[in-house]
Amino acid sequence: MIFSDPASVAVVGASDDPAKWGHWLARGALAGRDRRAVHLVNRGGGPVLSYPTVRSLSELAEAPELVVLAVPAAHVPAVVDEALAVGVRGFVGIPTGIDDGVIGRIREAGARLLGPNCLGVFDAATSLHLAWGQFQAGSLGVVSQSGQVGLEIAGLAAASGIGVSRFVSVGNQADVTATEALRDLLSHDLTTVVGVYLESFGPGIVAAMSELRAAGKPVVLLTVGSSSAAQEAARSHTGALTSSLDVVDAACRRAGAVRVATPAALVDLAAVLSAGVPAGHRVGLISDSGGQGAIAADLAAAAGLSVPELSSVDGLPAGVLPRNPVDLAGAGERDLENYFRAVSALVRGGEVDTVVLSGYFGSYGEDTPSLESSEVAIAAQICLLARETGVPVLVHSMRADSAAVRALRAGGVPVQHTIERAVAALGHASRLGANFQSVVLRDTATAAPFRPGYLAARELLSFVRFPQAHAVTSAAEAKATTLTGPYALKADWLAHKSEHGGVRLNVTDPSAAFAEMEARLGPGTYVLEEMDTREHVVELIIGAKRDHSFGPVVLVGAGGIHAELFKDTAIELAPVTPATARDMLARLVSAPLLSGWRGAPTADVTALAQVIAQVSETLAARPDLAEIELNPVRVGPDGVLAVDALIIPSGDTLNDTSGRRVA
Amino acid sequence: MIFSDPASVAVVGASDDPAKWGHWLARGALAGRDRRAVHLVNRGGGPVLSYPTVRSLSELAEAPELVVLAVPAAHVPAVVDEALAVGVRGFVGIPTGIDDGVIGRIREAGARLLGPNCLGVFDAATSLHLAWGQFQAGSLGVVSQSGQVGLEIAGLAAASGIGVSRFVSVGNQADVTATEALRDLLSHDLTTVVGVYLESFGPGIVAAMSELRAAGKPVVLLTVGSSSAAQEAARSHTGALTSSLDVVDAACRRAGAVRVATPAALVDLAAVLSAGVPAGHRVGLISDSGGQGAIAADLAAAAGLSVPELSSVDGLPAGVLPRNPVDLAGAGERDLENYFRAVSALVRGGEVDTVVLSGYFGSYGEDTPSLESSEVAIAAQICLLARETGVPVLVHSMRADSAAVRALRAGGVPVQHTIERAVAALGHASRLGANFQSVVLRDTATAAPFRPGYLAARELLSFVRFPQAHAVTSAAEAKATTLTGPYALKADWLAHKSEHGGVRLNVTDPSAAFAEMEARLGPGTYVLEEMDTREHVVELIIGAKRDHSFGPVVLVGAGGIHAELFKDTAIELAPVTPATARDMLARLVSAPLLSGWRGAPTADVTALAQVIAQVSETLAARPDLAEIELNPVRVGPDGVLAVDALIIPSGDTLNDTSGRRVA
Repeated sequence: MIFSDPASVAVVGASDDPAKWGHWLARGALAGRDRRAVHLVNRGGGPVLSYPTVRSLSELAEAPELVVLAVPAAHVPAVVDEALAVGVRGFVGIPTGIDDGVIGRIREAGARLLGPNCLGVFDAATSLHLAWGQFQAGSLGVVSQSGQVGLEIAGLAAASGIGVSRFVSVGNQADVTATEALRDLLSHDLTTVVGVYLESFGPGIVAAMSELRAAGKPVVLLTVGSSSAAQEAARSHTGALTSSLDVVDAACRRAGAVRVATPAALVDLAAVLSAGVPAGHRVGLISDSGGQGAIAADLAAAAGLSVPELSSVDGLPAGVLPRNPVDLAGAGERDLENYFRAVSALVRGGEVDTVVLSGYFGSYGEDTPSLESSEVAIAAQICLLARETGVPVLVHSMRADSAAVRALRAGGVPVQHTIERAVAALGHASRLGANFQSVVLRDTATAAPFRPGYLAARELLSFVRFPQAHAVTSAAEAKATTLTGPYALKADWLAHKSEHGGVRLNVTDPSAAFAEMEARLGPGTYVLEEMDTREHVVELIIGAKRDHSFGPVVLVGAGGIHAELFKDTAIELAPVTPATARDMLARLVSAPLLSGWRGAPTADVTALAQVIAQVSETLAARPDLAEIELNPVRVGPDGVLAVDALIIPSGDTLNDTSGRRVA
Repeated sequence: MIFSDPASVAVVGASDDPAKWGHWLARGALAGRDRRAVHLVNRGGGPVLSYPTVRSLSELAEAPELVVLAVPAAHVPAVVDEALAVGVRGFVGIPTGIDDGVIGRIREAGARLLGPNCLGVFDAATSLHLAWGQFQAGSLGVVSQSGQVGLEIAGLAAASGIGVSRFVSVGNQADVTATEALRDLLSHDLTTVVGVYLESFGPGIVAAMSELRAAGKPVVLLTVGSSSAAQEAARSHTGALTSSLDVVDAACRRAGAVRVATPAALVDLAAVLSAGVPAGHRVGLISDSGGQGAIAADLAAAAGLSVPELSSVDGLPAGVLPRNPVDLAGAGERDLENYFRAVSALVRGGEVDTVVLSGYFGSYGEDTPSLESSEVAIAAQICLLARETGVPVLVHSMRADSAAVRALRAGGVPVQHTIERAVAALGHASRLGANFQSVVLRDTATAAPFRPGYLAARELLSFVRFPQAHAVTSAAEAKATTLTGPYALKADWLAHKSEHGGVRLNVTDPSAAFAEMEARLGPGTYVLEEMDTREHVVELIIGAKRDHSFGPVVLVGAGGIHAELFKDTAIELAPVTPATARDMLARLVSAPLLSGWRGAPTADVTALAQVIAQVSETLAARPDLAEIELNPVRVGPDGVLAVDALIIPSGDTLNDTSGRRVA
């Protein structure tokens, strides 16, 4: 590929001034000259880094395959036109402000552009270093929309020992997209784990992350926006309740990826995953200090890990109890081998999925030089154990750097100087293990055309059970009803009925209620409906909408104020299977209400999950619909009843004061 | 003080073997021999660290004031007895397993013991280094129940540049307690901020932390237990809802201290506080990368900081917009002075309380050596600005170490290598600023003696409004009531009425309801009570109990499932003022329900806060009471009505099947 292993490159704007980008890019390019032809272009001529330059690309005997644009934006058009004329196939666009006309000419010529406004590209497999900054070769593939965030990731990857396999700063993505750069990593052998920083999400991103995961290269996604108030104006409760990051998280679950909030969290997680994906969320903790063990246990619980009691553990050091956290107290100090014994006992015991060793280990050789070689040997034993068993082992060492710390990192065991980074990485990693699943779509969507109003929504959502109801347009019709009271009376055409006085509950005299409401709201189609008077009913909201980045999503939330005040919702990309819908229900804080809270009967969760799945399928299959909302849905031991429904068609701007329709 | 500046010390167990504790302690003691007499005691005799030793304390011409016990526990009794005989006044007890008899003899002799099971003591002001480990002199006073956690704190303090002023490992606190060690720091001039690790809390700890705060030495408390299931069996909802860490947090608020969960968080916060306590929670963010600025903004919001819009900012670099985060883009690279200009503009602008600079600064000199001196000069300018204005400035640098990074740290500006540590520290620091207040107690407690039962509880809590009610012991009495229905009928003596069928609501026929309940529960005192039928009422729980570490605490929580499922509660040490009670209400997630949620009338929060304060005062003033609970309390626009009350006397083990009382 032209951006990972070009046959020849030219740096236009190469400079001998070490404060200039053209200097770094020239130096990086020259580092690969054993593998490819490297040309430096400098308007003034004269050597750069003791290497001869040409004044323009036309002076070269043969066109370079890839050109790095390290000149000010104003000079770019002329350079690009000259390059295209001589047959250049690719450009790395460093400066900001390359105009659209130039980009258009590159694309028309069938050439490719990385950037503009990017930091360049690095590939450890091909000695390609056309980027600002230093890189340590390793296993993390980095794709970043922000060059500097990418550089921070690369720097932290070097410090943690994992290193970078390929670095692609995609900048403004005028041509090469992040999705494309991610797909390129599928066949990149050095890359075993992928870190990506994105501020927006183009098409195909979920598929690309899924394919990388399936290829054994899990993706860690760093993104921003948790604090931005840029929520689109909500047309429904579902809209108000689905933040953009909730949807990103849903996309990550679908793709078998994990979202993190900082560059360090990305690298720490990548370091764990480069050794293997933990089988589950059970962590065994070992420390030579009871206090440090307790601190680790608190952090583990907060990170969603479990610190299980150990039933029996063979091979612990003499006198050490099979508790979790394991407290070595002075056992390690008495015999360094006891650190290995404890780790080995937990790793081989089969009762935990990962092990964290926290405390003094890594400091012995620094404090007492005569102990350094033994400590390094123990470190090597721990690395071998982790590799052989595939059980991730992490070390938190009070020493930031030492021979033992370096030995652990070199052997693939991540070491952190603060316990929070070790535990946070495991917390993220354990989320990755459980949730990856491919989704088999079913085809149960209805073909009924969209029509406005509550009664039409009930028809379109024919898979949902609603209370008995019929249209009424006069008091006489209301009086003649054969439904059983108490009743609800609703204005069919109003989307937000409560806010506009368009709903009355617990009606016992339907004709009087009709007369009163019609006097206020005017003639139109009203709906008379039986009230759901079942006891032991839990109210929820089920909704689906189309996210501008990730497409259809489905939401279930606790009813009433629970969803809004307490944000008790679960969101997934749509469609979901009934099994995933059950998982969503189980994630709700109010899930206990569904399973016999304080002696109440258990709700019909099977039927509920079915409705969630069908709502999700309907929205996914119907591009003519923008949102579907059932709110509230009432579920009891004897099934699910939706007592209001709202469907918003695509492109519609909902307006409660228009669109009234008389049946 | 004997443990901070003894006139003379002896290390018993001094050793020439660098792997032995006696070696470290001897080396540390000798470092102070310009200030005090240092004696080394070694059973074998012969020099240690080229310094002469004696075989026993009796060989010394004069008794040392302080003796370090660095011998195995088995040898301690003989050493201590000999020491006491020659007149030693203090002991640092390193080993575990010093028996109670020895400790008793030390205390009887009027001497003092630090430990046992401790790592020793260090004082930067007096060259006293009687501890394992290395210390960098600085401003953080450390008191730790765990020696190794203390050592980890000291190591991180050295790395962060703040250093340690005094280190006291209190170990098992057989004599010298953590509280005493904290109070000693009040008069320790080098100490400007205090870090303490505790697993349990002795008497006086809140007062000691308060006094340190009042003396301008804020306390950062590290403790554990968030994951431990060691909740005491709950006798009331209040008991079930007050976790031990919630109470610790309440104690910290009362004392003007802040709790953290890790050693690094403690040191990071201490580094901020050693420069000054932020005036508020408004943070100005500056980065040379839009991505890094956005990441910082997300973290700030998650840490409870605000990232306010800036109205106008004078002095920003040309072309840089007055947004928050400030995006320098290439302005810093063009002119390093622009970093200072941006920081200065925010610091002097008065619209933020703290400033974080995140990104590349700190890397220039490393990447381009010719820029190092300018970068260091800018760093010095930033330090001076922070000192002059008292506005804390923090830096996140992509470079872990560089001349500029060291210059910032030396100048009192904390530098972090990961943005999350910088922002987390500011989040903790801003909590410290707002909450410190002294509490003026009022005396409104009732003198009524405790008697069991609901009616007696209503009498004792005479400041609370309850619905009209009277005792009934027969169906005839129930029939003859003059109260207005609908009624509630309750078994007076049952603490947990619902669970035992001892309450019926919405009763319209009191005599029939009485007959039915009496048939089930037997004869006794029942209570007939008017139902609270007001609309627009919010239900809450108010409770107070006695915490085994911190004494009386008061709780308010959202009613019903909100408190239990969603943990929507606020807890403070009791008593609280009505003003603090209002703060507690404002902290509830469901607070919006009290202030006109969706057009409902505003609840009488003034009356509600009054009840919370009075409940808290009553429990605080009445040692004969263990718990008071009003659940539910119903508050509407027209005031507060409690519709159940429970009082548990001190020492009582609540038993619903006994204690029945016929009026």
